[in-house]
Amino acid sequence: MIGEHSSKQYDHELETIRSKVLLMGGIVETQFQEAMNCFRVSNVERADHVIAEDNTVNQLEVSLDDACSHLIVRRQPTANDLRTVMATIKVITDLERIGDEAAKIARTSKSLHARGAIALNHYDMIRTIATATGDLLHDALDAFARLDGKQALQLIAQDEVIDHEFRSIMRNLITFMMEDPRTISSALDTLWVAKAIERIGDHAKNIAEYVIYVVEGKDIRHTKPAAPSPDHTA
Amino acid sequence: MIGEHSSKQYDHELETIRSKVLLMGGIVETQFQEAMNCFRVSNVERADHVIAEDNTVNQLEVSLDDACSHLIVRRQPTANDLRTVMATIKVITDLERIGDEAAKIARTSKSLHARGAIALNHYDMIRTIATATGDLLHDALDAFARLDGKQALQLIAQDEVIDHEFRSIMRNLITFMMEDPRTISSALDTLWVAKAIERIGDHAKNIAEYVIYVVEGKDIRHTKPAAPSPDHTA
Repeated sequence: MIGEHSSKQYDHELETIRSKVLLMGGIVETQFQEAMNCFRVSNVERADHVIAEDNTVNQLEVSLDDACSHLIVRRQPTANDLRTVMATIKVITDLERIGDEAAKIARTSKSLHARGAIALNHYDMIRTIATATGDLLHDALDAFARLDGKQALQLIAQDEVIDHEFRSIMRNLITFMMEDPRTISSALDTLWVAKAIERIGDHAKNIAEYVIYVVEGKDIRHTKPAAPSPDHTA
Repeated sequence: MIGEHSSKQYDHELETIRSKVLLMGGIVETQFQEAMNCFRVSNVERADHVIAEDNTVNQLEVSLDDACSHLIVRRQPTANDLRTVMATIKVITDLERIGDEAAKIARTSKSLHARGAIALNHYDMIRTIATATGDLLHDALDAFARLDGKQALQLIAQDEVIDHEFRSIMRNLITFMMEDPRTISSALDTLWVAKAIERIGDHAKNIAEYVIYVVEGKDIRHTKPAAPSPDHTA
């Protein structure tokens, strides 16, 4: 009886934590979308809001880590249950980093617009990677919400599309910079934005991997075969 | 009696995990130093070794995460003891990311040398940031080994020196690129190396913060006041 009671309490507390993690996920998703809007069209207030939201996200990270610790100490989960808590702790870290990257994008966008340094075609250049990354993040959070291992597995490959797109953006920007060296500084800022987006994709992929870890009970991190040739560089 | 026995077992198992984390720390420290050597002087074999070591580090991450889970389930630590395990889990993640960044530096260095594209002054330009970051990483691991909160606290400020140095490198490289657009591609590669070093500094700072969390029992992440002005961009 005590076991069952304790287990129900455990489930209830875990569900509360998971809801808050999803709330945190919703915040960083909005942060990212809003940061991209700030890159497209200058909006100082909006950019400041994205930057300020980083504090909210940071506080959520600390309090959720704390809630997970308390859950472990009070409920002494079984190995199986603990896996979910461990994965949740890792997901929280990734969400916090996504918030950081979104704030970086907002800061860089603000600076670019303030200098009147943003080129019209820069947004077009990163539109594809931004959409793909937004979708990946949304789907990873969805897979986490429903603990859908099958969906999560499909997402892993999407991150490679994002990495590929990033390298293509880099090549394009290098061409522009060489053609007109006066654009180097603003092109570099756009490159940092693209890099931040690519990192958000990495974090979204991590979240998908943790979902698989919970559902399948196996750790699929680092199981992908190494790059085909050691000469292949990013 | 059982409590005491269990506690001793716990201490013993935790010490084993901590030793392995320090071993992992030693590997990534060497990876970073070797990667910097590869940037300075072309050495394909050495670069390949740094890249291959990433697998060792990844496997250590998975097995150490597993060991931490087992420890929690079997020994059911108190809130106080659990703090150390939680911090250890976070340190492991940071060490793995440092390994990733070191492998990136080795890959980029190899590619730069293969193209004969490395400029002599590029190493001079990043020498300072590389030394400061190597020292910070070493000291952070040392603070973790000795659980020295005082030392860890002193390290937090060092990361700002590294961030400052990174921005100075970026400005210098932009100047070089504008003066001679043919160098854009190689200057960008050097910039990615500097960025990877700066990220290693971030991870080393995280490790110092986790040491403080264990020793002082308080979470000092995100407690620094926000940047003085919202117009200040990195």
